[in-house]
Amino acid sequence: MSYLRNAWTVAAWANELEPGKLLARTLLDEPLVFYRDAAGQPQALLDRCPHRFAPLSMGRLCDGGASVQCPYHGLRFDGSGACVHNPHGDGRVPAAARVRSYPVVERWSAIWIWMGDLACADAALIPDFSFNDPAHWAVGTGSMVVDAPYELEVDNILDLSHIEFMHPLFASEAVRRAEVTCEQDGDTVWCKRFMADDREVPDFIRQVFQVNEGPVDRWLHVRWNAPASMALWAGGVAGGRPTEQGIVSQQAHCFTPESRERTRYFYSIAFPRAMGPMAEELAGQSVAALRGPFENEDKPIVEAVGRRMGGAALFDLKPVLLPGDAAAVRARRLLHAMIEKERA
Amino acid sequence: MSYLRNAWTVAAWANELEPGKLLARTLLDEPLVFYRDAAGQPQALLDRCPHRFAPLSMGRLCDGGASVQCPYHGLRFDGSGACVHNPHGDGRVPAAARVRSYPVVERWSAIWIWMGDLACADAALIPDFSFNDPAHWAVGTGSMVVDAPYELEVDNILDLSHIEFMHPLFASEAVRRAEVTCEQDGDTVWCKRFMADDREVPDFIRQVFQVNEGPVDRWLHVRWNAPASMALWAGGVAGGRPTEQGIVSQQAHCFTPESRERTRYFYSIAFPRAMGPMAEELAGQSVAALRGPFENEDKPIVEAVGRRMGGAALFDLKPVLLPGDAAAVRARRLLHAMIEKERA
Amino acid sequence: MSYLRNAWTVAAWANELEPGKLLARTLLDEPLVFYRDAAGQPQALLDRCPHRFAPLSMGRLCDGGASVQCPYHGLRFDGSGACVHNPHGDGRVPAAARVRSYPVVERWSAIWIWMGDLACADAALIPDFSFNDPAHWAVGTGSMVVDAPYELEVDNILDLSHIEFMHPLFASEAVRRAEVTCEQDGDTVWCKRFMADDREVPDFIRQVFQVNEGPVDRWLHVRWNAPASMALWAGGVAGGRPTEQGIVSQQAHCFTPESRERTRYFYSIAFPRAMGPMAEELAGQSVAALRGPFENEDKPIVEAVGRRMGGAALFDLKPVLLPGDAAAVRARRLLHAMIEKERA
Repeated sequence: MSYLRNAWTVAAWANELEPGKLLARTLLDEPLVFYRDAAGQPQALLDRCPHRFAPLSMGRLCDGGASVQCPYHGLRFDGSGACVHNPHGDGRVPAAARVRSYPVVERWSAIWIWMGDLACADAALIPDFSFNDPAHWAVGTGSMVVDAPYELEVDNILDLSHIEFMHPLFASEAVRRAEVTCEQDGDTVWCKRFMADDREVPDFIRQVFQVNEGPVDRWLHVRWNAPASMALWAGGVAGGRPTEQGIVSQQAHCFTPESRERTRYFYSIAFPRAMGPMAEELAGQSVAALRGPFENEDKPIVEAVGRRMGGAALFDLKPVLLPGDAAAVRARRLLHAMIEKERA
Repeated sequence: MSYLRNAWTVAAWANELEPGKLLARTLLDEPLVFYRDAAGQPQALLDRCPHRFAPLSMGRLCDGGASVQCPYHGLRFDGSGACVHNPHGDGRVPAAARVRSYPVVERWSAIWIWMGDLACADAALIPDFSFNDPAHWAVGTGSMVVDAPYELEVDNILDLSHIEFMHPLFASEAVRRAEVTCEQDGDTVWCKRFMADDREVPDFIRQVFQVNEGPVDRWLHVRWNAPASMALWAGGVAGGRPTEQGIVSQQAHCFTPESRERTRYFYSIAFPRAMGPMAEELAGQSVAALRGPFENEDKPIVEAVGRRMGGAALFDLKPVLLPGDAAAVRARRLLHAMIEKERA
Repeated sequence: MSYLRNAWTVAAWANELEPGKLLARTLLDEPLVFYRDAAGQPQALLDRCPHRFAPLSMGRLCDGGASVQCPYHGLRFDGSGACVHNPHGDGRVPAAARVRSYPVVERWSAIWIWMGDLACADAALIPDFSFNDPAHWAVGTGSMVVDAPYELEVDNILDLSHIEFMHPLFASEAVRRAEVTCEQDGDTVWCKRFMADDREVPDFIRQVFQVNEGPVDRWLHVRWNAPASMALWAGGVAGGRPTEQGIVSQQAHCFTPESRERTRYFYSIAFPRAMGPMAEELAGQSVAALRGPFENEDKPIVEAVGRRMGGAALFDLKPVLLPGDAAAVRARRLLHAMIEKERA
């Protein structure tokens, strides 16, 4: 299957892109180099000099970000991909000396990239992660590489019934008995899980929702946008109280394929700056706490699933589907249709 | 070339399959999970949940062995491969929720598996390794993985003329001057090597056969059954005495392909329990002593041969064959014919 | 693209081939074993016994170099590739028991091999590296493996305009402003670079050319012969003096493909024995000093270029060529033509 190209996808967290440094990252099988220009704006170029194909990311940033210099013979390129300096001979720049440049937007603590048709690269199409707006939220961010197709990560987040089996720390039996609904709104898919009157709540969960005793009403709402940008609202409130009074943890789970078999996983958790300095501290602690289960519990299983599937398409393997797969199947079919349409 | 599927092959030594534990092993390119059920009987399932394709071996054994629980969403399967528990929603089990199950038999200290046509899985077809019957024999067992096609291991054991060159500790020049006969009895191939009046016997061999001085009559009898289950009788007696009075070391050399290029090697050596407690001790010491040459002398050469052959079929490479190759060539042709017949 | 086979190429430095030892080396995808025979002459055989395909290089040299014994079943082969000993049974040697043998010549401190048509293997075709004649020159030699196609190493040496960007220690801006000429003389390609009146000479370069102050006239002359044997004369003299009075460093840069993606790099630097004992010392020090930049500066970039090209042919990727590429392009087209002609 091809990739969806006409979509914004996370290339990096904004804090991964340090001024004055080049960041190399392969996405959708394309080697890219990211940097901040003299104005601090993110730029993305194909990480391959058009002369002798050396990675620009092994070179250096010149003039405070005005251009990137190739490490091999010193050609320099600006953020539009134009060669702006040829140090050799008479210094003439061949007309063909251009490198592909990609639209990138810094928004909601992330660097978003558009790897498709330039004419369609409208920043308004970036899905809403306003809860990661650094002006109002302290955002704890993390990322890791998973050796599995990105679709398997979408499946994992869209069917949280796995929590009880994979993450004992976060789960109670209530999760699997939850009332689950799958909704579609245009190209957005939702999976909403409501666990009323949970009486076997793990301590960790009680702390998060600040319900020290008695039953808890809990919910897990996941929103998917193509190709694999997901928001998760995990809420809880003392049993029977209005959900509006609850505490809600807001997470991003965004995945960008490096290749068919390797995925970069961007996750975050946000706390309102209105909480004061504690917000920043909580964001840091919480995202660090998430890393353990993601790395040690989800990742090994998701990677093993990938190996067991051996590169085959899911439906070709005729999976036995359960009701909990509804949202993941919906998202997958929608994604397939979008890719088919794009290729037509 | 395909695998021979309608045959019993060793999947594990019986002592590798510990009660209460799951054992993952890939054989014939199929991922399998082995365990002992509540009655202690060995069971084998395809190691891939039919729902989302997680390896069952990453899950856990439930109810003392009654079922295996998938690590991802908690479906449980019994030894027949039936899904016996769905923890989600109303708990209904989809009719298609079955995983492939394989006939397995514990016999002669080994777990034998049948990966072919179920209708033909007759335990009477397991080749006779009664010298490994734990009731009467102390059996020292070992195993290792060799990165080479299993056929090369068959060649290695069926032509022991390599001993002098590869294993100086075990060999004298008599080995290559031995009288060698190749016999076929139905689908069983024998290679019998008799070394009369050996006068340059290594000390190690004298100890084994308890002939402290003078010439020794020695023999090496190897029996092959498809695909790669071999018994080796290594005997010796004071020169000129009847072979019936000799001491015979009884070994199994059984090979099961993990893939075309990787083989699991199961070896053993047995001593009669009639010897008393010394039998167990000898079995342990002897199998440990065998490991060194197998690991350090056979394995590197056999793996290098595999690399040099580069995946080509032996006869396509037009090997220069010597008389000592007779049994190996016979077994290989027989195996090819059996595989061809099975595929027809 | 195929390899050029009808050409001499460096297989090893002469000092890598120690008497009494077997040297295994894969060149042009063929596994080879090298050794010195009883007369000290280099020999090369296919490193694969024709019986069961074990690597001869895992065996041993017999009778002071008269033959190589296979590690598996003990067949022995002489330098012509003939089986000269079969230790088994009646000792008869099958007529087909031959292993391919390759013409090899020890000349100019190197072992040259011819892997093409035997009828054309004329030692007079070995390109002239008489500055590496050990009788008159102290030759410092080194080698390393580069994970990139050998053509990229040719490009690297034939366009030394990279020096300023990759090797600050060796370079000044004069290199890129040099007068560069590309010449072809039969099948020999030259790239000559003259840097007149260099006033920003690095200290290291001043020392080499013994010009402590004032401008320096410098030159870099590179000669290429197919497939990838290059000589480099790096000279310098006080500005305005005749080049004949200058000091010239003489280097070999010879590359032999192990495979399409892996290259063995042989480099050397020679000093006249007329200098006395200092020549040997200087050769050793200088070749050690070269290793750092080759290993840490050229190799990572050349390997990265290989990865970026992903196995594609250079011209298929439509490189933007600069004037400095003239010699490398000339050599590449010549090499292609020679390979095409050889295959016709």
